[in-house]
Amino acid sequence: MAELASWNEGATRRAITDFVTQVTTAGGSGFVPPDERIATFDNDGTLWCEKPTYVQADFILRTWGAMVAADPTLRDRQPYKAVAERDMVWLGSLLDHVPELLAGIGDAFGGKTTDEFESDVREFFDTVSHPTLGVPYTKVGYAPMRELVDFLAANDFRVFICTGGGRDFVRVVGHEMYGVPRHRVIGSSSVLEYRDGHLVHTTTVELPIDDGPGKPVHIFARTGQLPLFAAGNSDGDIQMLESARFGLLVHHDDAAREFAYEGGAEHALTEAAVRGWSVASMAADWSRVF
Amino acid sequence: MAELASWNEGATRRAITDFVTQVTTAGGSGFVPPDERIATFDNDGTLWCEKPTYVQADFILRTWGAMVAADPTLRDRQPYKAVAERDMVWLGSLLDHVPELLAGIGDAFGGKTTDEFESDVREFFDTVSHPTLGVPYTKVGYAPMRELVDFLAANDFRVFICTGGGRDFVRVVGHEMYGVPRHRVIGSSSVLEYRDGHLVHTTTVELPIDDGPGKPVHIFARTGQLPLFAAGNSDGDIQMLESARFGLLVHHDDAAREFAYEGGAEHALTEAAVRGWSVASMAADWSRVF
Repeated sequence: MAELASWNEGATRRAITDFVTQVTTAGGSGFVPPDERIATFDNDGTLWCEKPTYVQADFILRTWGAMVAADPTLRDRQPYKAVAERDMVWLGSLLDHVPELLAGIGDAFGGKTTDEFESDVREFFDTVSHPTLGVPYTKVGYAPMRELVDFLAANDFRVFICTGGGRDFVRVVGHEMYGVPRHRVIGSSSVLEYRDGHLVHTTTVELPIDDGPGKPVHIFARTGQLPLFAAGNSDGDIQMLESARFGLLVHHDDAAREFAYEGGAEHALTEAAVRGWSVASMAADWSRVF
Repeated sequence: MAELASWNEGATRRAITDFVTQVTTAGGSGFVPPDERIATFDNDGTLWCEKPTYVQADFILRTWGAMVAADPTLRDRQPYKAVAERDMVWLGSLLDHVPELLAGIGDAFGGKTTDEFESDVREFFDTVSHPTLGVPYTKVGYAPMRELVDFLAANDFRVFICTGGGRDFVRVVGHEMYGVPRHRVIGSSSVLEYRDGHLVHTTTVELPIDDGPGKPVHIFARTGQLPLFAAGNSDGDIQMLESARFGLLVHHDDAAREFAYEGGAEHALTEAAVRGWSVASMAADWSRVF
């Protein structure tokens, strides 16, 4: 299994390879036909680094910053006020400000065509580096997870990214970072409207977002089935993991090489023990991270 | 081009094969890489017969009939009253009764798991025949269109069904009828909810439905692009066809072998002339229909 070169020998690696052997062994009791081999990977914290902030949050904050620079009257209201004042308390607790957040996202992207949005995202990835790792965001994917994507694909799995973040954001880099083509990216989106041959972002977000119970809904909509293999890292992945036959939970316990945290993953870690999901300790199971 | 055996020589067949030659000729000015070769086919009236009524309408009416039989008090309200009284005027103008129709669909399927729904659909296809053609509904697909699906697939197109009708209805037979696997079916759906490891139909319909301007929205959501090739037959396909590089419109002009009608396709036929879509005359372009 040279394909999982960055995975140390141990229970987690063995559980993955045993499972893949089982579902690909023709005539065996666990055999699954290739057509039904669906694997789904959460993105933030599972395929790439999500600290100190979500990659897409950096993109959105920079977009808001440019809006404030172009129109200083925006400073009077949130979220622009916090951006202008570098109010890290407000910005550090975005999930406490969901209405302002959604309105700000609507302001920033509503009216853009999907082509315009994509070119903005492309420029972001081409020019911005991770604030602490000092490399472009396209280099903050986890090498062992990329190997796992390739390993599953080599065993006739169709591998999907299933991100709580923006589908059309991740599509821009899914292929170069993970070998996952744009039609294999599932995620959240604004409501799109068709106008004169173009698709245009509106100011509202499509519900359910691709998080928590929304993940299996999105996966079924796209594939016609629930996943055979799923990988996540946080509480928002619980329903996806429990709907899969094999669940893998990435545990961020490696302060030296990445970040160590369990915030937002407390329930998932508890469920992993109850349900027998495999836990990938970044510190113990991965010989390298990036 | 033996693959299009049921297509007569003529301008339409030639336009199709010329287009496919163009996009598959490496180094040519019209070359499109395989990853971007997306073809989308409407279903009702494009891949299978939609007269005298939509196949799925028959399924729904039979479901309502069974509900009335089980609970005669339902006879007091629509749509059950029309079903019980065989009120063909009411049933023949379902689109004038959309609120009752949606409520009835919600009553019929709300609360069912996707597995239960699929097994009801499977039973319908296994037991019910087309009212005038006298064959199972799985035999009312158009042979020339199946050949076209195969021809495109052989040229490295990813072929999707894009139905205004129910995604999870068509998924049940897409593979056996057209060779299109379930993950390549795009369509309308009820809002699904995840409950305890299952996906459950709610009583509301997901918007936009996969018709008219909703079609390119659904296609982009699923594939990350607009279609390279699209085939339709009615006004609900106009936006999908105009968003594609090659558009094909099936014209129902064959009363002898199928049905002859232009109702609901008037605008599409006009647009075809304006925009240069190819029109497949069932009478002239197809050597056989089924």
